[in-house]
Amino acid sequence: MAKDRNENIKYLLEPRAIGIIGASANRWKIGNSVVRNIVTGGYKGKVFPVNPKEREIEGVPVYRSILDVKDDIDAVCITVPAPLVFEAIKQCCERSVKYGLVITSGFSEVGNVKEEREIVDYANSRGMRILGPNIFGIYSSKASLNATFGGGAIARPGNLAIVTQSGALGGAMAAQAGVENIGLSAIVPVGNKSDIDEADLLHYFIDDDHTRALLLYIEGVKDGASLLGALKATAKRKPVIFVKSGRSARGAMAAASHTGSLAGSDEVFEDVIRQCGGLRAENIREAFQWCKFLADNPLPAGDNTVIVTNGGGAGVMATDACEKYDVRLYDDFEVLRAAFSPVIPSFGSTKNPIDLTGQATAEIYTKAFDAAYADENIHSALGIYVESALLNAESLARVVEPNYERFKEAGKPLLFTLIGGAGTASYEDAARKKGFPVTTEVYDSVACLGAVYAYKRFKDSGPEDSIDADIDAQAIENIVAAAKQDRRTSLLSSEAQNIMKIAGVGIPKSLIAMTMEGAVKSAAAIGYPVVMKVVSRDILHKSDAGGIAIDLENREEVIDAYGAILRNCRAHVPNALIEGVEISEMVQPGTEMIVGARIDKTFGPIVMVGHGGIYVEVMKDVSFRALPLTRSDILSMIKQIRSYPLLLGVRGEKMKDIETLVDTILKLGAIVDKCEGISDIEINPLVIYEQGQGARAVDVRIILSRD
Amino acid sequence: MAKDRNENIKYLLEPRAIGIIGASANRWKIGNSVVRNIVTGGYKGKVFPVNPKEREIEGVPVYRSILDVKDDIDAVCITVPAPLVFEAIKQCCERSVKYGLVITSGFSEVGNVKEEREIVDYANSRGMRILGPNIFGIYSSKASLNATFGGGAIARPGNLAIVTQSGALGGAMAAQAGVENIGLSAIVPVGNKSDIDEADLLHYFIDDDHTRALLLYIEGVKDGASLLGALKATAKRKPVIFVKSGRSARGAMAAASHTGSLAGSDEVFEDVIRQCGGLRAENIREAFQWCKFLADNPLPAGDNTVIVTNGGGAGVMATDACEKYDVRLYDDFEVLRAAFSPVIPSFGSTKNPIDLTGQATAEIYTKAFDAAYADENIHSALGIYVESALLNAESLARVVEPNYERFKEAGKPLLFTLIGGAGTASYEDAARKKGFPVTTEVYDSVACLGAVYAYKRFKDSGPEDSIDADIDAQAIENIVAAAKQDRRTSLLSSEAQNIMKIAGVGIPKSLIAMTMEGAVKSAAAIGYPVVMKVVSRDILHKSDAGGIAIDLENREEVIDAYGAILRNCRAHVPNALIEGVEISEMVQPGTEMIVGARIDKTFGPIVMVGHGGIYVEVMKDVSFRALPLTRSDILSMIKQIRSYPLLLGVRGEKMKDIETLVDTILKLGAIVDKCEGISDIEINPLVIYEQGQGARAVDVRIILSRD
Repeated sequence: MAKDRNENIKYLLEPRAIGIIGASANRWKIGNSVVRNIVTGGYKGKVFPVNPKEREIEGVPVYRSILDVKDDIDAVCITVPAPLVFEAIKQCCERSVKYGLVITSGFSEVGNVKEEREIVDYANSRGMRILGPNIFGIYSSKASLNATFGGGAIARPGNLAIVTQSGALGGAMAAQAGVENIGLSAIVPVGNKSDIDEADLLHYFIDDDHTRALLLYIEGVKDGASLLGALKATAKRKPVIFVKSGRSARGAMAAASHTGSLAGSDEVFEDVIRQCGGLRAENIREAFQWCKFLADNPLPAGDNTVIVTNGGGAGVMATDACEKYDVRLYDDFEVLRAAFSPVIPSFGSTKNPIDLTGQATAEIYTKAFDAAYADENIHSALGIYVESALLNAESLARVVEPNYERFKEAGKPLLFTLIGGAGTASYEDAARKKGFPVTTEVYDSVACLGAVYAYKRFKDSGPEDSIDADIDAQAIENIVAAAKQDRRTSLLSSEAQNIMKIAGVGIPKSLIAMTMEGAVKSAAAIGYPVVMKVVSRDILHKSDAGGIAIDLENREEVIDAYGAILRNCRAHVPNALIEGVEISEMVQPGTEMIVGARIDKTFGPIVMVGHGGIYVEVMKDVSFRALPLTRSDILSMIKQIRSYPLLLGVRGEKMKDIETLVDTILKLGAIVDKCEGISDIEINPLVIYEQGQGARAVDVRIILSRD
Repeated sequence: MAKDRNENIKYLLEPRAIGIIGASANRWKIGNSVVRNIVTGGYKGKVFPVNPKEREIEGVPVYRSILDVKDDIDAVCITVPAPLVFEAIKQCCERSVKYGLVITSGFSEVGNVKEEREIVDYANSRGMRILGPNIFGIYSSKASLNATFGGGAIARPGNLAIVTQSGALGGAMAAQAGVENIGLSAIVPVGNKSDIDEADLLHYFIDDDHTRALLLYIEGVKDGASLLGALKATAKRKPVIFVKSGRSARGAMAAASHTGSLAGSDEVFEDVIRQCGGLRAENIREAFQWCKFLADNPLPAGDNTVIVTNGGGAGVMATDACEKYDVRLYDDFEVLRAAFSPVIPSFGSTKNPIDLTGQATAEIYTKAFDAAYADENIHSALGIYVESALLNAESLARVVEPNYERFKEAGKPLLFTLIGGAGTASYEDAARKKGFPVTTEVYDSVACLGAVYAYKRFKDSGPEDSIDADIDAQAIENIVAAAKQDRRTSLLSSEAQNIMKIAGVGIPKSLIAMTMEGAVKSAAAIGYPVVMKVVSRDILHKSDAGGIAIDLENREEVIDAYGAILRNCRAHVPNALIEGVEISEMVQPGTEMIVGARIDKTFGPIVMVGHGGIYVEVMKDVSFRALPLTRSDILSMIKQIRSYPLLLGVRGEKMKDIETLVDTILKLGAIVDKCEGISDIEINPLVIYEQGQGARAVDVRIILSRD
């Protein structure tokens, strides 16, 4: 049975009864910790420890075998040594257990791939799903279930769900969440991801009322297309924050040796996760700050942020950070002056940063926040406090706490940064533990607000149908089939050009002539200037053989060139069969782009665009999106590249034909998606002309998939 | 008297006697706080409070006027209202006071520029230097002097000096330093920088044994050339960490309205500060972490770092961070295996990250650090701990503390990151307060080690003489003088080309012909193909007038073009005086760069290089260096641009003539530096050919300085 992605794995997170194969009475053993945590954690369902030698563990009666249990069992934790796991799974299948949680390690992560595969295939074919192997168990606040072998207490129940590929880091994050007073709805390690993966879990958490934000720690994605689908659906409902390591080449190598997972291209991951609404944090501190704030706070109604500070320098730093994290500072200076000049001291500034100066007391802060609260043009705010004799830690609480609460109620996110000595630090710590969003570094607060706005932009993007190009897949597949019969792994240039013609991508006009007269006629039909090239399978290096002439401007030059090409080629390769001469349009200069599509090993069909020619390798100015594509996806992908202004026209040049670029991207995507046998297409350069003037695919490379 | 940059301002930081004009008995007044802080701070020198109405303040006898004091006084703090400051300064001058510390605000920061200037000019002309106005006073541990009006205690004496442009932020940073257990040697706010600035202070701190690292908070630089000179000298002795706000356009605007200082180009600041050995932190957290570590720790002997971790995931994240912050992970896997395989558990990895796995105990960690300590190929290390039942906070101390100490003694920097729950967090806090370099985020530790290595690279760069181009400044100035007589603000293209010729920068060959025969001869002399252009002051738009012909390949085409140009121009501008026709070399395609030099408002003469043509505006791929230049400066500037691989040759192209590029940069720098009247030169494009083939300055723009 293939696993059903639409099946909701409710009873994995909310089992009505749970078994533990490998339960132990020895408190040093994992098989004991799991039972103990379940019992002391307040789980309300039935618990069935299995151990052939014990009669009772942690006060719960023990079964000799899972087969002896008469009740239905939703999930079974397996903690027996690796060589005994398969037998345990078989028994679970016999008992129609829905989920096997294989805590035991020693499978694919140490090279034991085959047995892991066999176990999963066996279980799946009998309707059972596997979580793990190589996990620390799961926690679910909804079920009051702590089925982990962790020693420490799980953080308090709350609304953040953590899904993690690294058990150790997952456990430490859960503990850290406790310190940060972040409540958890669930922690689910996915371990080796032999079966159940992040996509399955996202599908569950979409509808889980307890969960208001998700944190995913990922080292490598296995089934990227499923992940993106699940992410897109989830992110429309609740924020999903990613920490993905293996960004760098060396990091990817380390990840491979850690969990055996291939990281894939980090650039692709970054782009397609964002396309589908995911927020990517660089590190764990960022991730926690974002998760906590997003889980607890409303999204702002609009883009306008104000910075309210008593320190000019810190205000300047926050302004820099706003640019870095794409937070828009409100800049209607008239409105700002009207709102704030009545409340700020002289020498202060209303220009946003609103500078209350070192004279600011709690009263002045509160009046400034009153003004920001009352002004409907202001949608979010950053409060900054630089230690001052006029405002001690106690008064600080009067500024931070009520303002945060009423702004939150009004749908206006408000974050504070507090910079100072021991008193300030200890209030900051206390406030954070009480759940107020305070940091000691303006960059942290602004990064968090940046995540809020990134998420808002995704949520605000209305429902948009994906678009598709209508291509003649059959005609293209015929060309591919012929090449495959020749056992080729890539297409000839002429075949690639044919495919472009079929798909309606502009290529240089070209005709084959067999005679001098034909050449002259063809050139006239194409329009001068033209390029001429010998057609012969026997001449591989046409340029070396003198088989190419460029920039031919008139009839006479074509006649001369025709003669010269034949002479040169006959002299160079005496026995060559010359099939004719190709006359092509001489491509006029334009903006050179690179456009591509491929079946990505991780994410399936993806498209790519970038600044082409030789610059693509040097500047690496490219962006990616996964199929299916909306028009907005393609436009945002084009706008993302640094050289986008070249398409808008620089130095008085006119706007380029962006429509044709969009269309070409869409067509390449459709080709790799729909045509069997093509794994990779790249046009470099695609020369783009002014608006309405189209483009020319000058060089097209198509790589076939390996069967 | 012009201020003398070489004068060491020793007695500002170490005054033997100090006065306070504006001393007050009222404890709510700044004039009281300063006296009280001096007295309670344990200052050993003489204190002379001045107040016409009081007899004793904080137990110190009061003088009616500074004129009444008989002793020599090194420094006087001035806290009287702004309108009374000038008179106070005059009295100080009369008493030959060396330094006036103007705490009072209300000068240039609120637009009162003129009086501030007058005060400084008056003081300087009488041998007195001014710190401020608009400062909170100074702190100097060497003198046990706390002459600030801050309410809280200054952090403990130590080895970090803080120089700050923002008083509020400076005070808060000093307080925060206390929380972080960072000891301070001095805090000096520079306020409006009317006289004494960062450069003066750096000159003092170079030789101050108490100071082992400096932290500079800057919003805008006034005298950049002095700053760079002082920085270069200081950084060779001790690390200088910068936090400069106003990175973004909006941030620069906010800085301008905060301290009235112009931020200048942040890109230039970033490059020239690094050139001179400065380390730039993005924010305050980073700055403190770097300062503290660099002040307390040796520089490593070599580049090789190992990561020792019990969590694979955290190890992968650290690996990513190492790439981001340019920390080199040791990768001789044979040596690593030999060193670590005896000490790590099975399933661990010796591949760096050294993964001790979740099985790691304190003993295993210690053995791993033993191995890293013993191996002379390993020069620095990152220890990572992910909370684990096998290693509690108490054992953690046994891992962190002795290992850090012995690594430090052996000259091997070692930093720890501890990730976990309450126990871990509380040990982390305690360890940090005891002075051990522990963080909760791997990115923080790695960024810090990255700063260590950046500083090491600067210190290791041997003494290198600056180089200079030998140019005929007189000949160039003659051209400039002629243009200035015409009241022009920029040079004609022909004048700019003449300057290039004088400087020996390759330009397209070109001759003027007055006759058709002359044109033919000139073309032959230059070599085909050539470009032809009418020479006439009356024809402004030569192209529109049909006065240009390109790509002329032979005698016949030159003859045809000559006739056509004359006919076209006469038809288009009937009365034009045609002085001749310019015949120029047709520039062959090559790698297009932009090269420039200018007198920067902040930093004086600077040079620039980048990827040229239309890309410079779009890709903004440029780098800067300040004069004087070493050869390494120029090479590092070229290597810094993203498109550097284009110069090395991509796709089988040969290496480009980098020597000519270096030479051209040097020449442009010398021109703006030595030739009166030139403020800005830009060659775009400078077309560069293969090694040994030189370059051609196709378009040269020269802007004259305003007198």
